[in-house]
This record gives sequence, C-alpha cells and structure tokens, in this order.
Amino acid sequence: MEIYKKIAALMSLVKARKPLVHHITNYVTVNDCANAVLAMGGSPVMADAWEEAADMVDAADALVLNLGTLNDKTIKSMFAAGERAKELGVPVVLDPVGAGATALRINTAEKLIRELNPEVIRGNMSEIMALGGIRVAIKGVDSLVEEKGGLEGTEGSDKRGSSDIVKKIAAQLGCVIAATGKTDVISDGGTVCLLDNGHRMMTELTGTGCMTTSLVGVFCGVTQDYYAAAIAGLISMGLSGELAQISLKKGEGIGTFRAKLMDKIYTLTPEMIEAKGKIRYG
Amino acid sequence: MEIYKKIAALMSLVKARKPLVHHITNYVTVNDCANAVLAMGGSPVMADAWEEAADMVDAADALVLNLGTLNDKTIKSMFAAGERAKELGVPVVLDPVGAGATALRINTAEKLIRELNPEVIRGNMSEIMALGGIRVAIKGVDSLVEEKGGLEGTEGSDKRGSSDIVKKIAAQLGCVIAATGKTDVISDGGTVCLLDNGHRMMTELTGTGCMTTSLVGVFCGVTQDYYAAAIAGLISMGLSGELAQISLKKGEGIGTFRAKLMDKIYTLTPEMIEAKGKIRYG
Amino acid sequence: MEIYKKIAALMSLVKARKPLVHHITNYVTVNDCANAVLAMGGSPVMADAWEEAADMVDAADALVLNLGTLNDKTIKSMFAAGERAKELGVPVVLDPVGAGATALRINTAEKLIRELNPEVIRGNMSEIMALGGIRVAIKGVDSLVEEKGGLEGTEGSDKRGSSDIVKKIAAQLGCVIAATGKTDVISDGGTVCLLDNGHRMMTELTGTGCMTTSLVGVFCGVTQDYYAAAIAGLISMGLSGELAQISLKKGEGIGTFRAKLMDKIYTLTPEMIEAKGKIRYG
Repeated sequence: MEIYKKIAALMSLVKARKPLVHHITNYVTVNDCANAVLAMGGSPVMADAWEEAADMVDAADALVLNLGTLNDKTIKSMFAAGERAKELGVPVVLDPVGAGATALRINTAEKLIRELNPEVIRGNMSEIMALGGIRVAIKGVDSLVEEKGGLEGTEGSDKRGSSDIVKKIAAQLGCVIAATGKTDVISDGGTVCLLDNGHRMMTELTGTGCMTTSLVGVFCGVTQDYYAAAIAGLISMGLSGELAQISLKKGEGIGTFRAKLMDKIYTLTPEMIEAKGKIRYG
Repeated sequence: MEIYKKIAALMSLVKARKPLVHHITNYVTVNDCANAVLAMGGSPVMADAWEEAADMVDAADALVLNLGTLNDKTIKSMFAAGERAKELGVPVVLDPVGAGATALRINTAEKLIRELNPEVIRGNMSEIMALGGIRVAIKGVDSLVEEKGGLEGTEGSDKRGSSDIVKKIAAQLGCVIAATGKTDVISDGGTVCLLDNGHRMMTELTGTGCMTTSLVGVFCGVTQDYYAAAIAGLISMGLSGELAQISLKKGEGIGTFRAKLMDKIYTLTPEMIEAKGKIRYG
Repeated sequence: MEIYKKIAALMSLVKARKPLVHHITNYVTVNDCANAVLAMGGSPVMADAWEEAADMVDAADALVLNLGTLNDKTIKSMFAAGERAKELGVPVVLDPVGAGATALRINTAEKLIRELNPEVIRGNMSEIMALGGIRVAIKGVDSLVEEKGGLEGTEGSDKRGSSDIVKKIAAQLGCVIAATGKTDVISDGGTVCLLDNGHRMMTELTGTGCMTTSLVGVFCGVTQDYYAAAIAGLISMGLSGELAQISLKKGEGIGTFRAKLMDKIYTLTPEMIEAKGKIRYG
C-alpha cells in the first residue's frame, strides 16, 4: 500500500535529519516524551519559560503543545512559541489533554486552535469530541467514550460513527485530527484512516498518549504531508506498544512494559511496520 | 485476620471502580506516582494550576497533597483543591515531604492540617514527629530518626516508643497517621498497626515514599475506613518492594528494581498479601 | 596512577558520608538526577521555591544549578541558593544546559558565573565554548561541535584543539571545567585530563548530561579537590554507560539501557574504575 512507502520514507528522513522537536508540555510525562523523540531518531527540547519559548522555536522543526499540566505561565509560553512557529512555518501539533475536564483546559485548547491553527491535533476520542463541541463524559484525563462502548466496537468492526465524527471535526477545525483509542481514527477532513495496532496495556501506563503526540511531532518535522506524519506517529507508537506487550514474560507488568516500549520504538523499522501494520481506510 | 479480608475487599473495589486520584504533587516523582496509581488499578490526574485545581476535584475520589517541591503557586492550588474536597466529602491524603527541613514546609504542612483536616497523613518518622511538634534532626527530605537508631529497633522487636508517639500524634491531629520506616506504624489515635514488610533498598530509590502516599490515596478513593485504606496502601507498597528486591539478579541495582517494583504493584493479589503480609497490632 | 587512588578514596567517602546534594534543576530529567545521586551513594534534594531554596542549602554538602528548564522563578532561586552556598562554603556545580541556544540561557549562565563563581562547570563542548565567548553552532540543547567534527577526532587521537580551549576557559573563569563528549576534557586551568570512557548510546537517552553533573555534585560534597571530584563524576558516568551498553541484548534499546545505566552506577566499584578507566593527561 502507498502509505507504507510514505511511512518508510518519513522514517528515513527522521534518521537523516534528526528533527528538533520543541515542546511546551506537562511535568508528568515530559521525560517519556523526550526519550520517545530520541528513540525515534529526533532531538527533543523542552523550554517553557515565556522569555525563551519563542526563541527556541527558531531552530525547531516542529512544535508540540501539550496541555497536561497547563498553567498561566505555560499558556503564555504556548502562545508565544506558537505565534513564532506560525511566522516561520514550523508545524504545530496540539495535544488537548483533558479538554472537557475543566473550563481552563477547553478554553485554552479552543483559543490555541483559533489563534494558531495547528497542523495536527492528537487526543483521545473524548478530547477530540469536546473540541468539536460535542458534550461528552470525561473523568480526569482519560476518555470515557470507549469504556462506555458508545462509539467504539471491536477490532475490525465498522467504525462509521467515530470515523464520521473525526472527519467532520477535522473539516470544521481545518487540520489533521488523530484520535487514538482501541482503533485509532485519523482524518484530514477529506478521507479517514483507521489503525488497529496497539494494545490495551498502553492505557495502563501514563504518558503513552503524550508520547504518541511527540512522535507525530517528530514526523511533522520532516514533511509537509501532516496527514501521513500523523499516521506514521500513531502506527509507530501502536506497533511498539503491541510488540512490547508480546515480549513480556509472566509476572511482568507496566514497569518492564515501559522499558520495552522505549526499546521497541528505538528498534522499529519500516519493514516491521509494513509486515505488522493494520491500516485501513474508512 | 480480619484486616486481610478488608484489604482484599478494598483491592476488589479499586479494580471495579478505578478511583480517580487527583494529585497536587512534586515534579521529581510525579511520573512514578501516576504509574503506581495505574498499577494498583486507579486513575491518576495531576492538575496543579490554581485556576483548575479545585474543578478537577469535582470528579475525583481522593485528593493527594504532596509537599515535595511546593511553591507559592502550588500551595495556593493545594488550599483551593483541599477546600473543594472538604465541601464534597472527597478524602484528603497529605504527604508532608521534608516537614521540619525548612520553615516553608513545616508552616505549610501545619496550615494544611489546620484548615483541611486531612483524613490520612503519610510520612517518614522524622516528618511525622515534626508535625507532632517534636524536635527532630532532619537532613534534606530523608528521615534521620532511624539512622540514628533513636526510636526504631530491629524487625519484630518492641516498637513501643514509636507506636506511642504515632498514636499520640494521630489523636492530637484527629486523623490517621501512617509513618513509614523499617517497621511502618499506622494509627487512628485509638489502636496501632505495625507492618514489617518492605526492604531497605526502597530507601535507595527516589519516590517510594510518594508512591506509598498515592497508593493510600487510591484506597481512600473506595472506602470511608481510612485506617484500613492506609494499611492497604502501605502493605501493597511494602510487599511489592520486598518482592521486587527478591527478584533481582546479581549485578542489578535500582534501575531494574524500579521497573520490577512497578511490575509487582501491577501483579499484586490479595492472596499474596495474606500469605506474605506481616501485620501486627501494637 | 595517582588519580585512581583519589577516585577510590572519594567513592569511599561518599558511601560513608552520604552527602546531601541540593539541586535547582529542570523538570525533564530531575527524577534521573535524584536516582543517579542515590545510586552513587549520595542523598538528593530538589527544592526550587525561592522561599526555601536558600534554607535547604544549610544542610547541603553541594549545590547543583542546572539550567535545563530555567524560568524567572527558578533563576531567582538559583541566586538565592547560590549566595547562601558561597556564605557557607558549600561548593556550587553549574550545568549551563543549552547555553548559546537562547539569550535567556547564556545571560543567566554568565550572571551565575560572575556572581557565584562556581567550583565546577559541566557541559557539552558547545555549551562550554559559548561560556568562553566562542561563537558556536547550537541546536536545542545538543552539542553540534562533535557532529560537525570541528574539534573532536577519533578516540585516542590528538585533542590539542579542545584541550587548549577547555584549559583556557577554565583559567579565564577561574574554576574547573568539565566538557563531556566522545572524549571528556577536564581542566582546572593548569593541567588537562582526558577521559575516553562512555558510549555513543548515552547521547540517545535524555538526562545523561544532567546525571553526570549531579554525580560531580556528589563528589564535590566530600572533598575540596574539585578537579578530582569532576574527574570522579565523569568517569563514574562514562564507565557506567559503557558497561550498560555492553550488557544489552539484541533488540534492547534505550528503555532497557536506562535501567541498566542506573544499575551500573549502583554497582560501580573503585576496582572496576581502575581496571577499565581510560584516563590520560593532555
């Protein structure tokens, strides 16, 4: 399939160019994001003081804005960095962590989208629906959509519901939307791509969502085809999670899984993605 | 023993309800706390901006306030979140990290206790004694009480000294006190429970104290028996640490121990606790 | 060689005294720094609120100032803690992360050096050159000097270029300079010491530079021979990285490497350093 060639080409570009991915992100998973970027072949930088957040964009190939532990200072930095990114043509990837959970989060996410028009938004289905103005149950920063079984079925089944929603929101917001879940749904507003890789254990480890966003940032740092970049980021993470889980021995849990997950991102090849990738178009 | 049945019941409730444990905590061990909560079966959220710290409590089942890297912003957030918790009946668990080490820490801890009346306070013996108004040597954030051999003896020996102190402080502050050390001492002001699980290696890894507090938060999220919740949290951590240490091979140290510790929390069962638990009443 | 005896003596002192190393550092790698200090035998504390940053110095044996994610608050804390350290004779170790990448970083680093006169500065070659007033390409927080092959050759080759530069900057700034890279270059302004330990994989994991600085802090906490302390810190980290990489199995990457690296610091002995150390004087 054409997409696997694109992903392979993007992976080669990442290794060759080592894109600098600037982050304004949360302090819970920041270390995992930095290591995920390094494991994929990129170069991470996290500088969230408003006095330098924009300056650091000058050398960056992509900018990741993650709302995980936003506050008045980092919000100011996100706008400063985001505006510089827009001036310079540096792609912006937004992770609206917990959008819908508090007024501060949804208001900040909406303002960032309005003013910065990010190239890609990566979130779980609850967060994406909140951005689309759809009322949705949310508890903390985890999606309740899948748990409630409202939209998502079993692997391989028809995803018309969530596909349509994601496509509509992508068109509405004018960017690529990457909604992760049991089946990942990615759309540029025109077509929809579905990914069935990943493993449930990824929801039992903090940071897997944030790391996915950072990997999207890595790929956005080497191409202007942000739709392909989003697919590349999500399948890299999903397949790495799947392979990490398979490698676990009896009695091992999320501690070993965490180390193995990073190992799998580090050793991932285009051949592995082509052999084990589960990409469909909706 | 009755307590093992209670712990088993609490563990089942955690898996069934997946309690949301909101944290205002430090940036050193925050990732470990989030993963410990997930490993135990809870759902962590860390939102420390004062603009949303209280809003996030609305959906929470427990609130953990950890003074590890407190500052003027997070102190404000702790009071905002704590007051909302009190209004809603959400239990508050306090970790007075380094209380006694600086004026800022002891003053903040005392004010939080006075105004919020937390359900459980989890600290090392030095921190607990500082809260009880007992002058005690402290260096950084580690307890010196045990190192100096002042109060604690060898495993299984008489702990009358620390038992009496912890019981008295629990009665004085009107909450459950959980003092961790070679022998953990837990009291509700009436009775005293002693735990001999754990391993010295846990003091050589950062975050084991904070993670213990977060596990207490998980159990407080599913019961109003906060004394049992504190015991459940401490024995889960102590036994996991013990099992992780036993599983190490020659040449392995705190890096592997850290991963194994999380694995052991993840795979812990009530049966293991009943078989290997070392609970005594003082 | 004399230096190996010195390192062995410092390692024994660390185990015996457990020096308290206070950090004002970044939130990306703070957990790794804390665990590296513990693995080496020291005791870490990270308290960056300006209200207590200086108070925490009272009990400290060394102070590490790391610019990784500096902001107006933590800069204020660095000066408060640094001034107290100078009053009390507590050694200050500076890590000028990303100096040269933004104006905020270079200005802050220069002001800290001018006002606090740190005992040791540990950075990569780009950062050290920036502090010496040499214009150098920098991208994010990674050194470009080595990648461009400008100064560094292959292992064991002549390093006259970088040796001379580091010695000159050490003399100019009146402190020990420890520049890490393929070959580490350390100077007190008079002589130059070169270390050929380490492995390229260390550049693919976040935090290895910061951890090295923290280990220098540990050794500065037990001696006034800061040149030897810097050598001890760098060789401990370099050799641990080398041993961790050798221990990896096929298919393992930076996730397992990270855990093994901490294991190797934890189990390092003076005998291993003497047997495998690659120290030369330039």
